[in-house]
Amino acid sequence: MSFSHVAIIGLGLLGGSIGLAVRAELPGTKTTGYDADPDVRARARERGLADTVLDDPAEAVRGADLVILCVPVGAMGEAARAIEPGLSADTVISDVGSSKRSITDALVAALPNHQIIPAHPVAGTENSGPDAGFATLFHQRWCIVTPPAGADAEKVASLVDFWESLGALVETMDAEHHDLVLAVTSHIPHLIAYTIVGTASDLEDVTRSEVIKYSAGGFRDFTRIAASDPTMWRDVFLNNKDAVLEMLDRFLTDLALMREAIRAGDGEMMHDTFSRTRAIRRSIVALGQDDPRPDFGRADHE
Amino acid sequence: MSFSHVAIIGLGLLGGSIGLAVRAELPGTKTTGYDADPDVRARARERGLADTVLDDPAEAVRGADLVILCVPVGAMGEAARAIEPGLSADTVISDVGSSKRSITDALVAALPNHQIIPAHPVAGTENSGPDAGFATLFHQRWCIVTPPAGADAEKVASLVDFWESLGALVETMDAEHHDLVLAVTSHIPHLIAYTIVGTASDLEDVTRSEVIKYSAGGFRDFTRIAASDPTMWRDVFLNNKDAVLEMLDRFLTDLALMREAIRAGDGEMMHDTFSRTRAIRRSIVALGQDDPRPDFGRADHE
Repeated sequence: MSFSHVAIIGLGLLGGSIGLAVRAELPGTKTTGYDADPDVRARARERGLADTVLDDPAEAVRGADLVILCVPVGAMGEAARAIEPGLSADTVISDVGSSKRSITDALVAALPNHQIIPAHPVAGTENSGPDAGFATLFHQRWCIVTPPAGADAEKVASLVDFWESLGALVETMDAEHHDLVLAVTSHIPHLIAYTIVGTASDLEDVTRSEVIKYSAGGFRDFTRIAASDPTMWRDVFLNNKDAVLEMLDRFLTDLALMREAIRAGDGEMMHDTFSRTRAIRRSIVALGQDDPRPDFGRADHE
Repeated sequence: MSFSHVAIIGLGLLGGSIGLAVRAELPGTKTTGYDADPDVRARARERGLADTVLDDPAEAVRGADLVILCVPVGAMGEAARAIEPGLSADTVISDVGSSKRSITDALVAALPNHQIIPAHPVAGTENSGPDAGFATLFHQRWCIVTPPAGADAEKVASLVDFWESLGALVETMDAEHHDLVLAVTSHIPHLIAYTIVGTASDLEDVTRSEVIKYSAGGFRDFTRIAASDPTMWRDVFLNNKDAVLEMLDRFLTDLALMREAIRAGDGEMMHDTFSRTRAIRRSIVALGQDDPRPDFGRADHE
């Protein structure tokens, strides 16, 4: 069974990319869309992010067999309540949020009689809004599906098929494990990046102009993810607190060891650590999860 | 006055790029090169990283009016002593190292009767060795020249001209300020990246395979600079200890505040911080210091 009508609620980077990807990869599938912001709806119509963009969330999901909520984690419950009047009994409700335990709870509470099958495509850029999406965002990226206990196996298989059709690789796991894995591969990196960019911006003995000029020494890499959507990321940290704090404390423990090695002049400890970390980058590149060219293939080397 | 013969000691990413850049941008200028590793010398001859690659460091600098030491920070003093027999009285000695106070001291101690004008091109990739260099590495990147008190103004101007000829933008400042600025724009970012990649590699409840698969959520960005040369970076932290510890402690203070905001559920503090950090990325892109395309222009979005 494949979905014939996909409704997309929230037409930013992720929602817009889903709409464009469905048009490119599943031409027989109908898409409808809605966004709470009228300016976003207008731009979504211009870019054709869905076949039809409606002004009412319940109307946007009417007749859909798959609804994907693409709103910030903290807005999931409210979005689910807003679409409820338009849902059919067998509509599958999914999402793209970055923390799965809290979203599953919010969606089950808002729509207790519907099939809730949360998912998280691990893909994105630092851009957000209706101009940010593109059809190939999910190519060769992993999408994690987290079916709650008792989820309809056939509907889960359909959702897996849907994401594979958009070019994604799909894995299923439970919500708790997802939240722990993503804390380390996504949430802590964003937290660290936001923090060091904040630290550098606020210095008095090094000017902002100097930070910008000499950013190619490594700092500029951190500014990319620190340019991500503030509301989305606030909600991630509010909703995946336990796993984030657990992973943050492990990082802080390791950073304290590194600080002590620098203080004590322990070159051997540093060299050992710095040598081990090369291997993981090679694996990431070998498995097609990053650009093999030096410096991510930045244009300034062309 | 421009240099007619440039000797490059150390033929890795930086030294090799200088050789290739001189050939591309200053065709009348002769280059000679040396590397302590015979395999690197052989590869450097194959790639033509210098007009002539010699097997003896003193022979490599004979007749040169500019010598650029492109070895790890901790090897600068030894490299300076090795070239001493081949130097002329008026040869300018420069380098490309990432910490300037310690290098200046080491070079002045090793060659007390020569013109020492240290420099640091803020440019590089995660690759190292004689295959890593390319002629355009310095285009639109800043090069910081740190002339010691009493440096010959005409020779400083010649070194500035030299770097501008290779496509760099040049700034001069004192070594101490350089070390503080680079601690925040380069050294701390590398330290954080090495540490978080190490933390993620050592987890037991999240597998290495999961870290690799879901790295596109942000983590993969950190693995690039954590793949940088271990010896080079060990030496940076051993030689810029005070500035690195000072900046690290400021980062740790800010990270503790962020940790507390997450623990307390303070969404407003997070949103404020995450909103402010966007501006600095816009400035970096506007000033030509990073690729304007989303995700650094990674190929997987093409």
